[in-house]
Amino acid sequence: MHLKLCQRFLLVAVIALVRVSSKKQENRQPNIVIMLMDDMGWGDLGCYGNQEKETPNIDRLASQGALFTNFYSANPLCSPSRAALMTGRLPIRNGIYTNNHFGRNSVFFPNVTGGLVDEEETIAEILAKLGYRNKIIGKWHIGNTEESFPLNQGFHEFFGANANHFGPHDNVNAPNVEVYRDNKMVGRYFEREFDINLQTGESNLTRFWTNDALEFIEENQNNPFFLYWAADGTHNPLGAHGDFLGTSKRGLYGDVVRELDYGVGQIITKLKELKLHKNTFVFFSSDNGPAGYEGIESGDSGPFKCSKLTTYEGGFRVPGIAWWPSVIPKRQIERGPATLMDIFNTIMDITGGAVSNSSRHLDGQSLWPVLVDENDIKLGKNTVFYYRGDGLFAVRVGDYKAHYWTWNIQKEKLRDVYGDPCRGDYLENFITDTLRDHRRQPVIFHLGRDPRENYPLDPSTREYTRQLAIINEVRESHIASLAGDVRIPQLNVCDKCTMGWSPNGCEEIGMCRTPVDCNPSLCNWFF
Amino acid sequence: MHLKLCQRFLLVAVIALVRVSSKKQENRQPNIVIMLMDDMGWGDLGCYGNQEKETPNIDRLASQGALFTNFYSANPLCSPSRAALMTGRLPIRNGIYTNNHFGRNSVFFPNVTGGLVDEEETIAEILAKLGYRNKIIGKWHIGNTEESFPLNQGFHEFFGANANHFGPHDNVNAPNVEVYRDNKMVGRYFEREFDINLQTGESNLTRFWTNDALEFIEENQNNPFFLYWAADGTHNPLGAHGDFLGTSKRGLYGDVVRELDYGVGQIITKLKELKLHKNTFVFFSSDNGPAGYEGIESGDSGPFKCSKLTTYEGGFRVPGIAWWPSVIPKRQIERGPATLMDIFNTIMDITGGAVSNSSRHLDGQSLWPVLVDENDIKLGKNTVFYYRGDGLFAVRVGDYKAHYWTWNIQKEKLRDVYGDPCRGDYLENFITDTLRDHRRQPVIFHLGRDPRENYPLDPSTREYTRQLAIINEVRESHIASLAGDVRIPQLNVCDKCTMGWSPNGCEEIGMCRTPVDCNPSLCNWFF
Repeated sequence: MHLKLCQRFLLVAVIALVRVSSKKQENRQPNIVIMLMDDMGWGDLGCYGNQEKETPNIDRLASQGALFTNFYSANPLCSPSRAALMTGRLPIRNGIYTNNHFGRNSVFFPNVTGGLVDEEETIAEILAKLGYRNKIIGKWHIGNTEESFPLNQGFHEFFGANANHFGPHDNVNAPNVEVYRDNKMVGRYFEREFDINLQTGESNLTRFWTNDALEFIEENQNNPFFLYWAADGTHNPLGAHGDFLGTSKRGLYGDVVRELDYGVGQIITKLKELKLHKNTFVFFSSDNGPAGYEGIESGDSGPFKCSKLTTYEGGFRVPGIAWWPSVIPKRQIERGPATLMDIFNTIMDITGGAVSNSSRHLDGQSLWPVLVDENDIKLGKNTVFYYRGDGLFAVRVGDYKAHYWTWNIQKEKLRDVYGDPCRGDYLENFITDTLRDHRRQPVIFHLGRDPRENYPLDPSTREYTRQLAIINEVRESHIASLAGDVRIPQLNVCDKCTMGWSPNGCEEIGMCRTPVDCNPSLCNWFF
Repeated sequence: MHLKLCQRFLLVAVIALVRVSSKKQENRQPNIVIMLMDDMGWGDLGCYGNQEKETPNIDRLASQGALFTNFYSANPLCSPSRAALMTGRLPIRNGIYTNNHFGRNSVFFPNVTGGLVDEEETIAEILAKLGYRNKIIGKWHIGNTEESFPLNQGFHEFFGANANHFGPHDNVNAPNVEVYRDNKMVGRYFEREFDINLQTGESNLTRFWTNDALEFIEENQNNPFFLYWAADGTHNPLGAHGDFLGTSKRGLYGDVVRELDYGVGQIITKLKELKLHKNTFVFFSSDNGPAGYEGIESGDSGPFKCSKLTTYEGGFRVPGIAWWPSVIPKRQIERGPATLMDIFNTIMDITGGAVSNSSRHLDGQSLWPVLVDENDIKLGKNTVFYYRGDGLFAVRVGDYKAHYWTWNIQKEKLRDVYGDPCRGDYLENFITDTLRDHRRQPVIFHLGRDPRENYPLDPSTREYTRQLAIINEVRESHIASLAGDVRIPQLNVCDKCTMGWSPNGCEEIGMCRTPVDCNPSLCNWFF
């Protein structure tokens, strides 16, 4: 114990030294680059076991940096997960959820009226106060209200879309989603330069996101910057530049992964060219598990069950790679669990930033200690909360995960029409077509021995009883921590008038549409 | 095309040079080390995506050598697969199969009367003629006849067992399986020093296999040697040395993997210590997919469907790592498919050995060209034949795999009693409880896009028709090649008198049992 304590002191000293020396050396705050993929799966990357090994640049990042082997998104769907990353808080706290129905997923379709509220504080807002120049490129997707737009949430620059790129496609009954540069609309998806050819899969979007990132880094080489590179190519409908079409063994999805991997390589090369790599913290991840229900042209959840939308492991496990040469030791491997929300705390730790309201509950932990100390493989907070909308479906503590509720997705409404997030996966009484309440006897797995969630612990064993007691306590104390800290759900009300009919800038490019009257109603979330 | 041709010429020249220079430098034939694991899965190693990353030594081997990403066993069960590795020929040719029932697996339980026949030529026999000293350590498992014993199949030394280590356990109704040193029995499994404690999982076996390998290398440092290290710790019942018990996050199975990984590290260190590493070809693999039906304490088939015993991908995909510093380029990655039988041809290529009967049909191809040429990622033979006993269930050509027959295992006889090789996996009309004939309309998958075999090609598409025609042709020509080249099945007849009642050496150690009368009958293979 004494030795352990000494090690801790040593560690703190090392961290302090690293910070001082890196600051001294570079005479300025480290840059931050978050690369957040869209629906990319744990099993999509060579370094996480993809059998085609088509991601040399990301694999290199992993082999030179720290690869997390138990890394989790904050939610099985993009809007809530992205909002959690930005705020360091679970969606149930920051408001990016619905309670129209229990335990249903929801997302900022362009007709949803809500958005991240001003009272939430984002990484960008905190870094802006520290003098950072902040830019988001690609997909924002955490609100359709003005206050939730990136430029009102701490970003100085924006190139991309507030909403998703997946529809509408035809611009007939509703306007196609608008693409912005800062506060000005510069086009719409599926039109002109922002087209995604639904027949051929050809699109320039990833190339735009990549080139814009390179320019931003170049322009800000002499001041601290925060780049949030939210390239969304792996989200359906898939699009890759002509140079990449047909280059993968994995089909169009693989082509897109290859182009994103190339983009990662370009960004790293640029950092090196400008000699910024020793003063830049890079983190690579994905917003949720792969979109298994979209069929063959989607990501790979590796050895895990099911995919996006679900609280099985495949819905939550994502890649997590930290890279900072000469600061984060090479090939360091952590055994987590860690989550996207931890990136918030980690960035605070690296930059010395802090939330204005020091009593605000943050759901993450800083990963900095385990990142810089090769011998430290244990994280303090050892928990993952698997929410689906307003429902806390499962809780992981250490290596054990207890499922209190299970549900695949509504068979009639989505599975039979669209596809199955659990296709190819099966376990009786566990992968359930309807919402099932297991609170009387939660289904518990040891994720070390059984990452596939195939062998529930026997409820009659001491191991089950002991672990359930531990997890129950963590769950109850978490629920208690929500008291007074749960914002009004922002994904409850839908209204077509919210869509981008005639945003600022539409006139210049001749893309205005006549707005429709407002007629709000409760959104009907069916997945 | 012209350039391609030039590259080929250059390649041939390079290979010739490497051979000449390595021979010249070391003035002797390169050593050969095959490390063949037992029931180890594709997903058990960090380098293949295991999330616990507990195999640093094997991962290092992979990062310094060539890791095959589409590597296959020769059969979904150990005896046939091991015989295929030794002979370079499919079990249907070399006789290690049964035809008592169509499409059933069989294996050399100690009461099976057959064995590899003398007419088959093994790697060891060929290398012996070239002056190699050959040793097998661990599990042989390709016959109970005298002619099939290692010392009659080209090996000079033997430490291990002809039969499996999994039973009998109690030495009451039948003798426990005997352990040999060369031709002399030195003990029995589950007794004295060869015990596997079925309660604690403690066993010295892997340590014995490792230490013996180190001694053999030491003794043969001045002459060419062939070491076949067939450490079987990952086969149920699992056993690990006390030093490793409880060290893995994956439970006892993980402890065993860690000890084997440590053993691999010891062997590599010994080669380096003796400066043999630049003159030794090391190949690491496994005999078949993991034993999923054995429950939680078994290997991981990674992203693939089902496990051992089946012709789904999880039954056949195994790790494949080649290592030879300064000869095989670092981090070279192949996209196969390649199989265990290719190791036979590769070793012939490396050593200049050849089968005596030059018209003998070999089912593999040499991997040497792709191993030494970093730019060559395509293999000539692009086929995998997925046999189950005497049944050719599926054929892979290039990226496409066609299933002509499907079958999980007999539900009543094995699944309900023992376990399910497809636990957690499901696909309608594909993972079938009973033998299903798809020959009228084979189920075809593109394994690049769909490694999980979740999305069969639509039979009404041109892609399906085209690929089926290609695969049908390969299948027919393969079947034609069997004419006159199918040995009498060696796993048809069972007789308790065959067991190791009183083998040579039993008297010295007081372990003789009274033999029983012979009473042969057809074996009843039920899996």
